[in-house]
Parts: sequence; C-alpha cells; structure tokens
Amino acid sequence: MAFSLSVTQEQLVHWRRALHQHPESSLLEFWTASYLAEQLTALGCDVKVGGEVMDRASIMGSPDDAVKQHAQEVALAQGASAEWLDRMEGLTGLIVDIRPDLPLHTVLRFDFDAVDVDESDSAEHKPSREGFRSLNEGRCHACGHDGHATIGLGTALELMRRRDSLRHNVRLIFEPAEEGTCGAEPMVSAGAVEGARYFFSAHIGASMTRPHSLACGTYGFLASTRFDVEFSGRAAHAGIDPHVGRNSLMAAACAVSNLLAIPRHGKGVSRINVGRLEAGSGRNVIPAHASLMCETRGSTTAINEYMFESARRIVESTATMYEQEYAIRLMGRASTAESDAEMRDLVRKVSAEIPYFHQDKVEDLGPGFGSDDVCAFIEAIQKQGGKGTYAQIGSHLPAGHHNERFDFDEELLLPAVELFCRMALELDARN
Amino acid sequence: MAFSLSVTQEQLVHWRRALHQHPESSLLEFWTASYLAEQLTALGCDVKVGGEVMDRASIMGSPDDAVKQHAQEVALAQGASAEWLDRMEGLTGLIVDIRPDLPLHTVLRFDFDAVDVDESDSAEHKPSREGFRSLNEGRCHACGHDGHATIGLGTALELMRRRDSLRHNVRLIFEPAEEGTCGAEPMVSAGAVEGARYFFSAHIGASMTRPHSLACGTYGFLASTRFDVEFSGRAAHAGIDPHVGRNSLMAAACAVSNLLAIPRHGKGVSRINVGRLEAGSGRNVIPAHASLMCETRGSTTAINEYMFESARRIVESTATMYEQEYAIRLMGRASTAESDAEMRDLVRKVSAEIPYFHQDKVEDLGPGFGSDDVCAFIEAIQKQGGKGTYAQIGSHLPAGHHNERFDFDEELLLPAVELFCRMALELDARN
Amino acid sequence: MAFSLSVTQEQLVHWRRALHQHPESSLLEFWTASYLAEQLTALGCDVKVGGEVMDRASIMGSPDDAVKQHAQEVALAQGASAEWLDRMEGLTGLIVDIRPDLPLHTVLRFDFDAVDVDESDSAEHKPSREGFRSLNEGRCHACGHDGHATIGLGTALELMRRRDSLRHNVRLIFEPAEEGTCGAEPMVSAGAVEGARYFFSAHIGASMTRPHSLACGTYGFLASTRFDVEFSGRAAHAGIDPHVGRNSLMAAACAVSNLLAIPRHGKGVSRINVGRLEAGSGRNVIPAHASLMCETRGSTTAINEYMFESARRIVESTATMYEQEYAIRLMGRASTAESDAEMRDLVRKVSAEIPYFHQDKVEDLGPGFGSDDVCAFIEAIQKQGGKGTYAQIGSHLPAGHHNERFDFDEELLLPAVELFCRMALELDARN
Amino acid sequence: MAFSLSVTQEQLVHWRRALHQHPESSLLEFWTASYLAEQLTALGCDVKVGGEVMDRASIMGSPDDAVKQHAQEVALAQGASAEWLDRMEGLTGLIVDIRPDLPLHTVLRFDFDAVDVDESDSAEHKPSREGFRSLNEGRCHACGHDGHATIGLGTALELMRRRDSLRHNVRLIFEPAEEGTCGAEPMVSAGAVEGARYFFSAHIGASMTRPHSLACGTYGFLASTRFDVEFSGRAAHAGIDPHVGRNSLMAAACAVSNLLAIPRHGKGVSRINVGRLEAGSGRNVIPAHASLMCETRGSTTAINEYMFESARRIVESTATMYEQEYAIRLMGRASTAESDAEMRDLVRKVSAEIPYFHQDKVEDLGPGFGSDDVCAFIEAIQKQGGKGTYAQIGSHLPAGHHNERFDFDEELLLPAVELFCRMALELDARN
Repeated sequence: MAFSLSVTQEQLVHWRRALHQHPESSLLEFWTASYLAEQLTALGCDVKVGGEVMDRASIMGSPDDAVKQHAQEVALAQGASAEWLDRMEGLTGLIVDIRPDLPLHTVLRFDFDAVDVDESDSAEHKPSREGFRSLNEGRCHACGHDGHATIGLGTALELMRRRDSLRHNVRLIFEPAEEGTCGAEPMVSAGAVEGARYFFSAHIGASMTRPHSLACGTYGFLASTRFDVEFSGRAAHAGIDPHVGRNSLMAAACAVSNLLAIPRHGKGVSRINVGRLEAGSGRNVIPAHASLMCETRGSTTAINEYMFESARRIVESTATMYEQEYAIRLMGRASTAESDAEMRDLVRKVSAEIPYFHQDKVEDLGPGFGSDDVCAFIEAIQKQGGKGTYAQIGSHLPAGHHNERFDFDEELLLPAVELFCRMALELDARN
Repeated sequence: MAFSLSVTQEQLVHWRRALHQHPESSLLEFWTASYLAEQLTALGCDVKVGGEVMDRASIMGSPDDAVKQHAQEVALAQGASAEWLDRMEGLTGLIVDIRPDLPLHTVLRFDFDAVDVDESDSAEHKPSREGFRSLNEGRCHACGHDGHATIGLGTALELMRRRDSLRHNVRLIFEPAEEGTCGAEPMVSAGAVEGARYFFSAHIGASMTRPHSLACGTYGFLASTRFDVEFSGRAAHAGIDPHVGRNSLMAAACAVSNLLAIPRHGKGVSRINVGRLEAGSGRNVIPAHASLMCETRGSTTAINEYMFESARRIVESTATMYEQEYAIRLMGRASTAESDAEMRDLVRKVSAEIPYFHQDKVEDLGPGFGSDDVCAFIEAIQKQGGKGTYAQIGSHLPAGHHNERFDFDEELLLPAVELFCRMALELDARN
Repeated sequence: MAFSLSVTQEQLVHWRRALHQHPESSLLEFWTASYLAEQLTALGCDVKVGGEVMDRASIMGSPDDAVKQHAQEVALAQGASAEWLDRMEGLTGLIVDIRPDLPLHTVLRFDFDAVDVDESDSAEHKPSREGFRSLNEGRCHACGHDGHATIGLGTALELMRRRDSLRHNVRLIFEPAEEGTCGAEPMVSAGAVEGARYFFSAHIGASMTRPHSLACGTYGFLASTRFDVEFSGRAAHAGIDPHVGRNSLMAAACAVSNLLAIPRHGKGVSRINVGRLEAGSGRNVIPAHASLMCETRGSTTAINEYMFESARRIVESTATMYEQEYAIRLMGRASTAESDAEMRDLVRKVSAEIPYFHQDKVEDLGPGFGSDDVCAFIEAIQKQGGKGTYAQIGSHLPAGHHNERFDFDEELLLPAVELFCRMALELDARN
Repeated sequence: MAFSLSVTQEQLVHWRRALHQHPESSLLEFWTASYLAEQLTALGCDVKVGGEVMDRASIMGSPDDAVKQHAQEVALAQGASAEWLDRMEGLTGLIVDIRPDLPLHTVLRFDFDAVDVDESDSAEHKPSREGFRSLNEGRCHACGHDGHATIGLGTALELMRRRDSLRHNVRLIFEPAEEGTCGAEPMVSAGAVEGARYFFSAHIGASMTRPHSLACGTYGFLASTRFDVEFSGRAAHAGIDPHVGRNSLMAAACAVSNLLAIPRHGKGVSRINVGRLEAGSGRNVIPAHASLMCETRGSTTAINEYMFESARRIVESTATMYEQEYAIRLMGRASTAESDAEMRDLVRKVSAEIPYFHQDKVEDLGPGFGSDDVCAFIEAIQKQGGKGTYAQIGSHLPAGHHNERFDFDEELLLPAVELFCRMALELDARN
C-alpha cells in the first residue's frame, strides 16, 4: 500500500536540530515545551498543557522554585513564548487530541527531555561539526529524545491531514521528564490514557544498532527507584581540630564504595548508580555537607526493592558511622512492562509496508535493559484491558546512549513518522 | 607608661562588622581590598597595590579569569571602588609604608581573606543576632581575619599620628589569601620584607581561648601542601551499559577513602583533608568527571612530604584502577617557622603595659598546629638575619576556627591595636 | 517398560551417609576416592586411577605437597586404603569402563568433592540429628556431591549386572575437584571422553527445588576464573613507626572493596567473590602479608574476561597504592556449555518411564547460573561431534547450595540410579 | 668506683641466644618461663610462679585452653621442664626476691615475650647467619625482650653475690605478655610492687639508636586499648545466590578501611592498627565469618578513648550495614606514665661510672611513642608514693622494632647488667 507523506525530510531535520540545540533537564523543558506547543499550534492542533495534563501532586523530585524560575528565564532568553510558559503553570507536559470530538482509542507517545551530559565539541561529532551542538552547557540530547519529539511533530502533521477519516480520537502525548522517570506518572494520574484501547511508542536506537532494523516490542525493562541522599555533619579546622569534625565527604565516599558493592542479585539484573556527588566547602575545612544522586534498578520489582533496601541500609549505617544527620528523598520510580504480542505483530506487519525497514532486520523483541518511563503508560493501558508495545527503531550509533558523542541517523525520521501514522490508522480501524 | 589611642572602640567595631559582612575567598577579596584601600587612604596613608606588591608569577592556585571577573562584579555591586579595582590589576594585596622616606625596619602584617563556610543563621550566633552576618552565601569570616584587618586599620591610624617621631619606615602588609596559603609568597617575591629587621603579626584566638590571655609567639606550625585533583573517565548509560563507563565518581570515592587512611607518621603531626569533592552529572549516567580539593600538613617538611607523596601515589594508582585520566595541580604551600625568643620577650614586656592582658594568662608560646602563611614572611625575615614572632591574642570562642559559629570578643580589638603600636615603636627604637 | 533394580534404598543411603561424613576439599579427596575405588572393586569393576586418568600438567591450583601429605594422613587415619592411595599417585580421579573391550560410546559422570563450609550442628539439620554429620571440621557436603557419587555407585552396580547386553563401552567418570573447577580439564586432557558419542550427567537440586521435579538440561552456566592473590609489604611497629610499614592488610581491604564494586556488566550475568582473606600476624605489627582467594564468573566468556581483567587491574593498582609486591595465581577455570536438544528430549522420554518423576514437574531446561566443571566434558564431547546434557534432579532443599544446612531428599537416589541406567541403555542402543 | 662483675659476656650471649631461638607469644611463654626458672634456680634464687605472682582474674585476652595446651606441648618438646610447667599453673610470670627476709624496697623488672613476626632468614640478619634464628615459625624476638630477660639473669647472678650487704629486699620481676600489654596488671593485682619505694626498668633500643647512648627516662608513652572483633553473617553460593549471603569478609574490609581513616586527633598522638584479619572459608562461598585483631593508642587516655570509641562506632555500624552479628572483646589495656626526675638523675649519675656509656650520648628523656606495659608498674609505684623510671639503652638497630630483621648489639648486655646492679645498690642505700 502506497502511503504519501506531506512532511519533508528537510522539515524534520530542521525541527530535530532546533530541538537538539536546546536540551533541557527533566521537568525543566520550558523552551522545548513552548517550541512544541507553537509548532503543534501552527499545524492546527489544539494543545493542552498545565494542570489539565499533569497531576502536580504525583510529581516526584520536582526541582525547587528558584531552579524552575531560572530555567524559565533561560528559556525566555532563548526565545520561548511567554504566553505558553504562562499557560503551562510550571508543568511541561503536552497533549494533542486529533479528534477530541470522538472517544479516545489510540495513544501515541513521544518524550522530549535531555540528559545531564556535556555534549562533545569534537569535529568527529556531527552536531558539533554541522553547527547544531547543544547551546546549554552540561545538557545534551544524548538519548535521541530530540528525534522522538520530531517524529511526534511529523506524526501530528500527517494525522491532522487525515483527521476526517478517523473513526476514533487519536491522542499524541508529549511526555517530559522521561530521563527522571517522573514524567509519565503525573500524566497517567491526570487521565492521559483513560479509556484508551491501544498504545504505541518507540525509542530510537536502544538495542537496535543497525540502520534499517526494527524491534517490534521491548522486554526486560528494569524497575527503578531514584533517590537523593543528604548528609550533614560538623565543620572544623582541618589542621587544628580534625577530630572535632564530622566529615560528610568521608561519609559520602564510604556510602558510594559500599553502594556500588551491593551484591549482584542471583535471580536477575540489578543495577546501582551514584550519578552525582557534591560535598564540602573549603579546602581546609572538614566537610559538613554532602549530597548524592542515586538510582537502583532491577529486572523485577523485587530485585529493585532488594537494591533500594540495601542502599537505604548502607546510607543509614554510614550516617551512624560518621555521626551524620541524613535524609533520603525519593525522586522517581519506574515499573516494568511487557509489550503485547498482538501489538508486536501489527508493528511487524506495518513495517513490511515501509521499504526503509529491512525485513531481515526486524525482530519481535529487543531487550530493554534500561528503565523507561513508558512502562507507566503501558501498565495503565494494560490494567484497563488495552494493549501496548514499545518499538525500537534501529540506527547506527557513533557512541552509546548518554555518551557525549551519541547521535543517530536522521534518515530514520521520515520512515518513523510513517510507522507511527500507519500504526495509528491500523489501530483506528480496529474496535 | 600611659599610651593614648585616638581610635575608638566604636570605630573598630564599625570596621570589623563591615568587613565581617563581606567575606571573600582567597585571591578574590576585591570588595575587602577596595574597602581597606579607601579606609587607609582616608587615614592619610599612601596605599600600594597591584603588581608592585604581588609577584604574579609566584601565585599558585589562581582562580580562572571568569571566576575573578564574576567576583569583581559582585564586589562592584556591593559598592567596591571601580578605581581601586582597576589599580589592583586583579591582585588583592596592599602595602602601606608609614615613612616611605626612611629605610625599612619593621613589618607588621594583617591578613583579611575568609573561609568557604556558610555562616550560621542561629540567633545564638552574635553576627546573626546583631545583623552583621555574611552577605555572601558560602563564605564566612570564621577565622577572625576580619578582626586582623580591623586591627591593621587601627594600627595605621595610630602610627600615622606618630609618624614624625619614627626613626625608620614601618610597613603594614595587608595579605590576601592566607587561607589558601598562597598570598604571602607572591608578596615576599615582590620584595615586601626586603631589608626589614623585625616582623610582628598576630592571630586572634588560635590556642588562646580565654579572654585577656596572650601567647607571645607560636611554635608547631604545620608545613602544608595544597593541591587539586581531577579525574576524567567515560560516561555511559547506567542502566544499559554500566560496564562501558569509567566511573570518575567511584575513583574519587576510592581516592578519598585511601587518602584519609594514609598511616599516621610516627615522628610528628600529620594531617590530610579532602575539603571538597564534586563528581558526576546526571543521575542515570556513569560519572565521567570528578574534582577534589585536598591539603596535607606535617609538623616538619619531611612529614608533609611523606603525606603529599603518599597522596600522589594514591591518586595515581586510583586513576589506574578506574582507568581515569588525571591531573594533580599544586595550589599552595606553607612552610614552618619558629618565633624568635628575643621578639617573644619583647611582646611579653610590651603586654605588661596593657592592662587588658592579664599577666598570669600570658604564655611564651602557643601551639600553632594549623598552617599559617605568616611563616613565609618570618622565614624570609630570618633568612636575611632579622627576627620575627607571631603572637596569639586570646579570646573566648563560641566555636572553633572554621566552624559556622566562630566569633571572637570585640573588646580585644583596642588592646590589640595598642599591642601592635607599642611593638612598632619599641622596635623602631632599636637598631 | 518395567525396570528392575538390584540396588536397594538401604544400600544407597548407607553409601551416601558414609560419603557425607567424610567431606574433602578439591584435589584432596583421598578418603573418598579410596572408598569409591574399594566399593567399585567390590562391585566387580576394574577401576583406573592416577596419571592414566588425570593429566598432571593440566591441574591448576594444586595444593602444595605438605597439604596433600597431611590430607592423605588424615584419610589413612579415617580408614582409607593405603594401597589405593599408593596407586592414585596423589591424583583423585577414577574411571570405570563397563565394557573396556568395546569402543567407547557413552560417558556418565559423577563428581564427589565437598565445600569448605562448617556443617551445621543444629538439631534441625538432619545429618546432625541422625548422626552422619561431617567428621571434618570446615568441610561439608553442602552441594550434594555425596549424592552424585552414591548414584554413581548404584549405576555401576546396575550396569555391571547388564554388561553382557551392552553393544558399546559405557564409561563412568568419577570426577574430583568440581568445586575447584579444576578436576574436569585434567581428565579431558588424559583422554577421558576421547571417542565418545554421548555424555550424560546430573546435579541434585540446583534450580529444581521441588521433589519429583526434573530439568532435562541446563542453560546459563557461568564461565569462571579462579585465582589467588598475595600481597607482601613491610612490617613495622604499629605504635612507633606506622609510617614505615607497608600495610598488606589495608591493601587487601582496599582490593576487596573495589573488587566487589566492579561494575555489573550490561550484557549478561557477572559475578565476583573473595571467598577467603587472611592477613597480618601480631596485633601491634603493621601487617606485611595478605592472601585472598577469589573467583569471577560471567554468563559469557567475554563477560568473565571483563570481570577477571578488571580484577587484575584492581589488584595491580592496589599493590602500587600500598607499595606491595604481589602475585596473582590462576587456580581454576570453567567454560560454559549448552545441553543438546536431542539429549534433553531423551531425558524427558526416559523420565516418563520412572513414576517418581511427575511429568508436570519436568522442564526442558533449568537455569545453571553457577559454574560447573561439567562444561569441560560437554564442550569436549560436542567438539568431537557428540552430544551431551546435564540434568537437574529436583529435591526439597532446607537451605541453598553451599549453606551449612544444605541437605537433599534421599528418596531421589533410587529413581536417579534408574535414570542414569535407562539413559545408558537407550544411548547404547543408538549408533 | 670500680665495680667487678662475675658474669661473663660469653654467659650473657649464651643466655640471649637460647632465649632468642625460642620466641613465644604473650601469655604462652612456657618454654621461656621454664628456662628462666631453671637458670634462676641454678643461680641460687628462690623463684615464685603461678597464682602467687599473677592474679588470674585480672588477665585480659587469655588464649583458650586448647591453644595453651598446645603451646605447653611445644614447650615440652623443646625441652621445657615438666615440673616447672606444673608449678606455673598455666601462668608465665616469675618473681625472685633477693632478700625475702627484708622489707621490699626496690623493684627491677624484665619482660620476655616475643612478637608474632616471621624472623628473616637472610644472611644479612645476624641471628640467621650465626645460627640462632627463631625455631618457632611466625614468632620472633624482634623487640629485644630476649636481651631484657638476659640482663635480668645477669642481674640476679650479681645481686645474689651481693645479697648479704643489702639493707632491703630487692625484687626481680620477670613479666610475660608485655607485647599483649596484659602481663603487668595481673602481677600488680597479685601485689608484685606492694610496699616498694623504687622501680627501675629499661628497654633496649627504642628511641636510642646509637651504641653507647642512654636515655635515663621515657616520656610520651601511649595509652592503648586492644580488642578483637568478630563478624558473623550468612554463607551462600557465590555464583547462584550472592544476594542471599551476608558477607562477613566485606564487612571486615569495610571496617578496616574506615578504622584506618579515623581522623587524627588535633591534641596529640593517635594510632590505630588492625594487625590481623581472617575471613571466609571456601572460594565460591559468600564468607560468613570474619575476625580482626585491633588496637588503638593515644598520647593521653582521652585521645585513646576517642580512638576506641570511634572504632567501636565503626564496627557497630559496619555490622548493621552488612547485616552481621558481631562481638567486640577487650584483650588488653595500657596506661601512660612519666618517669620521675629524681630517678632519672640517679640513672645519669650511675651511668657516669660505666665507661660503656658515653656521657655526650646520655639524654634525660627519650620519647616512648609506643605503649609499654611497664606503665602499669610505674603507675602503681607512684600511686603508693614511690618513684620509678624507665631507661632506654642505646643500640645500633639494623631494622626497627617488630621488623623481621630487628637485632641489637650484644656488647650492651654487660654494661646493662652493671647499670641494673648499681641502680639496685644505690637505691638500697636510700631510705
């Protein structure tokens, strides 16, 4: 079946590179959300934002007001729309209903936040060489979400053109804070998938590292808990009174060494990371404060629980050891979810119509190993009797996800838009 | 012998509190230096600043230009003089010669930088209760240098009044960056004590923790080496590819654990501190950068060398262990120096004329245990055949040096000014 | 098909309990090997031992002569046969050929060494309660190899009865040092499976923890490397000269902390254990020696290599950090191997004839997660075009493998003998 | 004053080398005590042993009965007297009263236990080269106590010759378990110095590392606490169930890393050592047991308390962190004590009569830095109004105390005997 697309490769690349230049951290994607809102509006979409699409009470690990304020100022300085920021009420999720007049049937989902990594400025790195490297120091689209949001825009354009032929409502969810695994739950709580039958989403790359390849679904997502730790000790003069201090930096170092050594779990995959540590003040002062950003993962909820409970015990006993006051704050949580076989079969069938995908490179399932906030949507859909899948769109990757040199093939953008459109139309045709 | 002072307690307290509210880090004391320059000028002094008083090439651990630029902007915003900042050429040391027309004979020295500690906002903390708490977050005059600079201003005022009776030049050195132990060496290199016979300086508190007490000299200063460490590894997705990362945060934690466990030296006092550690970026990224601020100390140069060489070996082998690139950068160095008995005797004699000091609380020597940049001046003076001492002016201390609640008795300011004046006059009378 | 067994449950329990009381470490199973040799001889078997069945040059991690001498003395004191010990030449493997006159076709394999664990003396532990607890302190049959050897004896008895009906030779390998994963390679090198077509072996318990259950094959064995580490430093008086010492105990502790924290591998299962650490001499002496017994594992050879190379790097850099001389000695190695589907199908078919096995509890494959020396045999068989499988015979387990309270159901011994016999006869019938 | 000695250098060297060949651990000096008893008896002394000279209830850290039994068997095999062992009742202290008929006035004290170090077998090491190296593996007279006991025998011989001229009783205490700092207290408790006025003892070497030198007293002894730690966790299969184990070896490593990093005390000397660590059983078993031998020291009781309490906190929180049961057992304790000036002056005066000692190498005081059980005697003497001193007899030392190559000049033995005799006679002449 021939399928004619209106969107051009040039348009997609333009969108993608604009997004790539403005990477923003989880829950602080003000420029990006404003840009998406403007582009979607220009495509004729009715864009919903704010408390209507995200339940504020369900947000874990929200940055404090000063940080959000600052992020909004930066976004404004980079050209974000003051009006859209105003309507967002500090929340960065967006929802577009193609046919709000019809009952919700199918949900497509695109995430758009970035990673806290400094993008490479090497000439071997294409975004650097071709002038669309990150403008935001310490932030980088090193996970392909700029591509996901671009595909979302392209899909919106195509579905708007075909809106009159739809039998049901198709919803496009633009999810913030996937990296923080704290964007999906507030949207689910606000009813983002309520009543829907089908869910489709996809990730660029992941385990599919060859061009023209595709995994129709994903297995092996890791349940995850994200948490921050604070230690407070007592400062003292490091030369005169070292014994008087209660060294928070030492406590942090001890905690890290032991956290990373939590025994591997015999029944499945376990993970732990301390992604950030900051401790102390002056060189000659016994450090009296330390903060750590941590996460645990497990291939089952039980394994993740084992990791997190071990971590909690280590933090607590380290605090006792170093006479620290301490706090452990939950900052995010991800569950696991399996792609439905029926949906995977449909992805395979649909992909066969798109020449870009080489059928000998199409797999039923790719491993998910990482955690993905998409699970919260799939879980919610499945709980209400619906079905979902999470595909992986293959790409050559110059470097792994979250690496400063991560990049993907822009040629996949057009076939990816076609995949989402065809999925939406096929699903719309079902009951 | 009666001794009439023109400076008032009110004036001293005013100066001290103004200084206390504007604590600045080593080599970044732009507001303070500008304030001192203005006050000294108002007292009729001819103030020398810039390359004339500090040898730029001898400065270790200078902050980079952006940081200095920012510090100057903050200082200007807080009312620093643009003209003085201009004349300083980015260097914050000051020298006042009371009789520049006569040969240099006596040097008095006052330091004025602050500590990188957040000042307490408790109502039990007098600066907080009485409204002169630090305006600069993360910086605090928790070592009494605001008092030292105040005493310097009072001493300048008194010596200017008596300038005609002087037989030689008396020089007042206002030294920046004592906490960084990197302020004295550039001043010595620029000739600050060249040709001088006598050197006198003093610290508030230290080992003298009772009001009305005094130590006429100090022993047991610790030699010290200050250095920064950088680790660079490789970022990776913490969920998908933990084994691909080269974890700089883990390297830092491992280094800290082993640095703090360097065996105590059997022949004397040894110290080590990692005062600050910063590592990693995002929570779900294997950290690829870490930086540490460290210092070692020893009661002899050899012991300090043992500590530093052990630290270097630990850093290097940790880098190998965690496959890191690394750098060790020297940021400061302090030597040890003994107070001369002849000078100590003079301090004792002079103090007997000042009722504030209770003679039963006057000691020959107080232990120095910490490191003090003053040693570089005393060493230079002694090398050219001169003599020096470093007194300790007793005070009740609500909390130890470098603690967020450190404070001292303001009543000691006036007798301290008298002590410096009398010392200058007595020494001036000698050949 | 009815199948009549001559061996009785009483006989099997008698053998098993005798073996259980005499647990011996890898390569030191002198009593056990002597006992097996005597029992097999009594059954009419021709038992081969010594250099003929184990290639001395292929043995890794052999204990030193004094330790072997001592173990033989203990064995003799416990009633081992001096004659057999003599014939063994210090090697503890045994081979029985049921029909040495015919070409080798089928190999059955039984391992018989014990674990270095102190057996529980609790009344809840059956061997303790019923009086057949380990007589050897620090050694325990906590992995069921006493059962394996017992099944081997039973199988020998049954096959000897049926020897005239065999078309080919059936070989029974009694393998020592499975726990050390260093018993199979020397036997393979000596030609133990040369020319054979089929290989069958089984483990009691493992992932099958319900009575009457059976896994027909095993997947997911871990490749493993076993190694010892020695650190040599310099002793010193801990009170007077701590800085003069080169602390081997500290080096060992540092190595352990970092070894256990080797990042999990993203592509599969990784393991590391430091099973034993001994360091230092007197309380007031800086420790100058340390030794560690370690092992790494991985679900692929590459992952195990990653673990071992990381471990090697940690040991080396720790040695540098603590100024130690060091040695890393390889003590054993295990590969991975997959059970052949054709063989698994035969196990399933055969098990259906044995009422003890409940067909709803028969699985195709059980996970192997641990490492097993059996892989060396299977690998060798497969390399020469043959086929093999490693079954798991289910049992209720009061505690996990290698735990001091491990035990298994003795009722499984008789059906297990039948399983081995039937497998041998079925395979013998094939070409 | 001329002073004629009967004992010969040959005799002293003979005794010393016999003792050197039979080094024994604290509280296990059965061969040595028996040998001393026999030699002293041969000199005509009445030797007291057993419960009369050591209060059994005051002994800390006594080895268990099996270890003592074994040590006695070894001693017997090496020629110890069964009769003396019998009389000792398992206690190894000895007391000789030169004039039991007169009131106790002066106490001389000699210690005789060895260090748990393997003696060097290098040809550069004299005891090895000349054939009197330790016969007991892992034990070595690396602290000169063989010399001390030899001097005690020589002194006994000389005082017995002069016994009729004595005005008071002179007591020779032969103290075991000085290295364990648990030999003095039980002797003090049994009344060993009750009623005495003067106490004299000496150490070979220590801070006096030149031949012909002498320190008349010692300052700076370290208070010390000796303790053992046990961790008990849970064993598990390291390949299958690593998460099920509770790893005692990891707990021990974590404890060690943190114990050694207890912050240095700002007010004086602090020490910590973990002298021995043993953990785990088999290579592939998660270790379920660990034991550590530790000691803390401090130049004041308060500093030692700080070290011990920090250590206790670390052990306890490590146990929590690794889910271990644990025990901390006190094994010994040493106090500090100062030598009396009056006694030091006498040592100086007496030494001037002995040509061996070069007066320009005689110091008032040498630093003690280590801990010495002698403090318990001096403290007890001083508490009852008496006076004491602890001298240091200089020697060239090829290697530091407790090093495997420690040795001393045998030429000092004769002048040392003269020093003890002259001190005894001078003190006897006083009231």
